[in-house]
Amino acid sequence: MAVTDKSVLYQHGTLSLLVPGLFEGTMTIGELLQHGNSGIGTVQDFNGEMVILDGHAYQVVETGEVHELTAEQSVPFATVHFDDPKVTTHETKLTKADVEQKLLTDYPYKNVFYAVKIRGIFSHMLTRVVQKQEKPYPNLTESTKTQPKFKQENVEGTLIGYYAPELFQGVAVAGYHVHFLSNDHSIGGHVLDYTLAEGDVSIQPFASLQQHFPLEDPAFLKEDFNYAGMSTSINKAEK
Amino acid sequence: MAVTDKSVLYQHGTLSLLVPGLFEGTMTIGELLQHGNSGIGTVQDFNGEMVILDGHAYQVVETGEVHELTAEQSVPFATVHFDDPKVTTHETKLTKADVEQKLLTDYPYKNVFYAVKIRGIFSHMLTRVVQKQEKPYPNLTESTKTQPKFKQENVEGTLIGYYAPELFQGVAVAGYHVHFLSNDHSIGGHVLDYTLAEGDVSIQPFASLQQHFPLEDPAFLKEDFNYAGMSTSINKAEK
Repeated sequence: MAVTDKSVLYQHGTLSLLVPGLFEGTMTIGELLQHGNSGIGTVQDFNGEMVILDGHAYQVVETGEVHELTAEQSVPFATVHFDDPKVTTHETKLTKADVEQKLLTDYPYKNVFYAVKIRGIFSHMLTRVVQKQEKPYPNLTESTKTQPKFKQENVEGTLIGYYAPELFQGVAVAGYHVHFLSNDHSIGGHVLDYTLAEGDVSIQPFASLQQHFPLEDPAFLKEDFNYAGMSTSINKAEK
Repeated sequence: MAVTDKSVLYQHGTLSLLVPGLFEGTMTIGELLQHGNSGIGTVQDFNGEMVILDGHAYQVVETGEVHELTAEQSVPFATVHFDDPKVTTHETKLTKADVEQKLLTDYPYKNVFYAVKIRGIFSHMLTRVVQKQEKPYPNLTESTKTQPKFKQENVEGTLIGYYAPELFQGVAVAGYHVHFLSNDHSIGGHVLDYTLAEGDVSIQPFASLQQHFPLEDPAFLKEDFNYAGMSTSINKAEK
């Protein structure tokens, strides 16, 4: 099914499958991009942070370098949508906490999934990037023990990601989960902190989450997931 | 989007929204049936148990009577799919526990959603039916304090429902959630227990769950869900 439905958020894999270390790519970028032109995720072998903008999938690797992914490369976990903001407002001088609170205060979407996109100039940006893992893959806690961080002041770029309702913790990251890519590709990754100097803040709520599973992946099908303590592992690694 | 995709399980509303008593119908039967010809759910005002077979939606009400729902009636929560079993086997003399265990043992689908359908003769069938509620709606625990039960021996009919992976507790009922309707409409409802004398047991795994939210319903958008203790409320009411 490759339908351009802007009311659907599409996710391949669950966040939970990263917890025991299921980092094998189970969907190609080519197929993923049929379900959205914008989004975030990680790459085969947990090899960095993915940012998808305007139909192009970029990989920020542990050295800080940014590569465009090819249609044949694959991902274990990614979330995408067709960009179509419901509301965009021009904002100045907002911290990460300000933006997160503002969206929940200004819009009635705390119980649904929504995309957040900010195009602008960030007076401060702090990211981190996960490190490529080798088989047999270690689990998420082991894999994320050391993670390079990157920092820049006054950087222009796009922040993109999602808000997920609390009920979906483990399916996704409950609350916000956003990535960043600067226009000049000098910095990107999973966003830890930022201050927006000036920019356009967009929100796009979704009527549906299409949660797609790697139904042909034997390792996923066989895994005995341990859900007790999963939320702790996720928050440790993803926040 | 009305695509006949047999790999997608479509759910309108979450089980969690029933917990605080959000029993208002937020999708018509007409629209729901565009997403599947088979399934289960409940009806506006929590008015009974729904069973959808061959594109017809039946409502089993608290008196035990069965009505066919019209396209204009609506539901707060329902799960549907297009019937296309992957495997069907002829089975004899199986208890509910036997069937549930057998499907998990014979097929590799414990980590995904799958539909279960049994057409056959049941030597024993025990169902219950929720009671219609009035506004302001009480919560799920209050609403399900008394629930009429129905019992029959040697009844021919169709059992239909779903298995949901544990990660989705609250989105759906984790584990099995099945309803029943006899061919002569003399008994139906939420299945508490059964013994299959003889029949065809079908399984249909899904690559995706499309979780649809009542994005236009102010009561849903405003609700402050209390997820602590939700699993207890759900298991008390639904098991």
